[in-house]
Amino acid sequence: MPHRPFMLGIAGDSGAGKTTISAGIARLLGEERTTNICVDDYHKYDRKQRKELGITPLNPECNYMDIMEQHVRLLAEGEPILKPVYNHSTGTFDPPVYVPAPRAVEEEGRLIPRVVVLEGLLTLFSPALRSRYHLTVYLDPEEELRREWKVKRDVAKRGYTPEEVIADIERRMPDSRAFIWPQKEHADIVVRFYRPPGYNPENPSTLNVRIALKHTLPRLDLSEVLHSAYEDEALIRLETRREADILDITGNVTPDRAQTFERIIWEHLGHHAQHFDPSLVGTFWDKAGQSYPLALTQLIIAYYLVKMRELAIERGHLRVA
Amino acid sequence: MPHRPFMLGIAGDSGAGKTTISAGIARLLGEERTTNICVDDYHKYDRKQRKELGITPLNPECNYMDIMEQHVRLLAEGEPILKPVYNHSTGTFDPPVYVPAPRAVEEEGRLIPRVVVLEGLLTLFSPALRSRYHLTVYLDPEEELRREWKVKRDVAKRGYTPEEVIADIERRMPDSRAFIWPQKEHADIVVRFYRPPGYNPENPSTLNVRIALKHTLPRLDLSEVLHSAYEDEALIRLETRREADILDITGNVTPDRAQTFERIIWEHLGHHAQHFDPSLVGTFWDKAGQSYPLALTQLIIAYYLVKMRELAIERGHLRVA
Repeated sequence: MPHRPFMLGIAGDSGAGKTTISAGIARLLGEERTTNICVDDYHKYDRKQRKELGITPLNPECNYMDIMEQHVRLLAEGEPILKPVYNHSTGTFDPPVYVPAPRAVEEEGRLIPRVVVLEGLLTLFSPALRSRYHLTVYLDPEEELRREWKVKRDVAKRGYTPEEVIADIERRMPDSRAFIWPQKEHADIVVRFYRPPGYNPENPSTLNVRIALKHTLPRLDLSEVLHSAYEDEALIRLETRREADILDITGNVTPDRAQTFERIIWEHLGHHAQHFDPSLVGTFWDKAGQSYPLALTQLIIAYYLVKMRELAIERGHLRVA
Repeated sequence: MPHRPFMLGIAGDSGAGKTTISAGIARLLGEERTTNICVDDYHKYDRKQRKELGITPLNPECNYMDIMEQHVRLLAEGEPILKPVYNHSTGTFDPPVYVPAPRAVEEEGRLIPRVVVLEGLLTLFSPALRSRYHLTVYLDPEEELRREWKVKRDVAKRGYTPEEVIADIERRMPDSRAFIWPQKEHADIVVRFYRPPGYNPENPSTLNVRIALKHTLPRLDLSEVLHSAYEDEALIRLETRREADILDITGNVTPDRAQTFERIIWEHLGHHAQHFDPSLVGTFWDKAGQSYPLALTQLIIAYYLVKMRELAIERGHLRVA
């Protein structure tokens, strides 16, 4: 029988930081224990066809949603897939790549389910997709910040001018509103990076983050973790609202204080964190520097992931043998 | 709920006539009622890699057998697939193509399951594959004839010289024997074209055919059909052996006699044949001429297909609503 993996779904608009967070989670858990899949490869049309049809990749009609759902289901059931590949440089499709069955990983004589991280524009779009995840995250940065990030990436990595990127963002806005942003409602964790007063784009490590932990999550003992740090107002605030607990972390925290908080989460993870490499968390995609809010965001997602994986194993939802 | 299609598996060595027979069946049933899939597209390695590794495409190790099995299963369950594409001209892979869900087709107010024709070198290789077909065919032409056909095609369509094709056939012989030929044992119908004495390759319509109808097939009423024609020794012979009924059709039959036999099968198919277009059967792949043994082979496969589809519908094995 195939092993069933733990399924983590990460959605967000273009430039919202999906790849950064996904890669950070994979580094934190160990890349040999994770399978990272970008579901933006399931486009129906290449760039030229999209232009002719006047359709954006944000539109589900522009994607083979049925195949995306099928592949997410197959991975959730522990099967391999042959994944399509969209080439962002050429705007066309490359040959598909083989993704091996997400088999469990042995750790000290025990089989631990592999983590499949699915990230993309429409990861949480349909009920068929959402039903397959054990944990869901939506990345919801302040819109100005998302634009800054998207311009930075598309100019550096995809060969566009800043003006082209901005025009593209504007053209996509109706579809962002119609198809991408509503997915926020379906996430267990919503992550919002935002700028502090007097923010300097050259120093992104000063960004603040607000993390909404929905009550769709089981009440785990994170509040206790937080409590220890709660007195330090400059570091962190936790507020319980009707639909979520809101966690605020400011970027101007001192390294000492952030590291204390990291250590507390670490200790709560216990033996599950023994393979975590703390030096790997919190690096920005451009490796320009460390961000404690980013590091703590990745740690908190990893914390829920590990706890919920334990729950799923206990309840027999993850078959590993 | 998805519609389950009728699954026809056709295997045989390179050049054995798989595409000719598959295309003939599809034309006979109506192309809008069939989905044709070549499972030779599931190669793991491109031509250059195969050369470096010293592996032939006939070797299951050279193919993503798990994905092939998965896609055959998905089609059998009525789902769409994103099928890989191997390009015989370039020897590399093209972008995958979308194959829609094989939905049933409405005919006079009744839903008839679509026919999915799967043809390829390894179609019948594994139990996982074989378990998905309702009818299986193995094409087993006389070896000299297969070589003649393969040289003809690979020179005309794939840009090789005759010497290259012969060298390739020789290099593949151990794998043909190890992996391809044993599949014959698993077919319901084995079709062997062979040369009459004094055969002239310029006139392939004179070829004889011997069709083994295994007793794995339910005893349908073909023997009755045959009986009407049985007296004409020059046309046809039916012999019952331990494992199969052996049907011999010679190429030197007169058009009148062949057409009489065609008409008898036609009548036995009754209303199921109303969409069959008799002018489309029996054309060679190069459209050089008609072959009555080929035409009758296609008709006999179609006959079993239609009869077994009716049986499967009656028994509730094919869900069409």
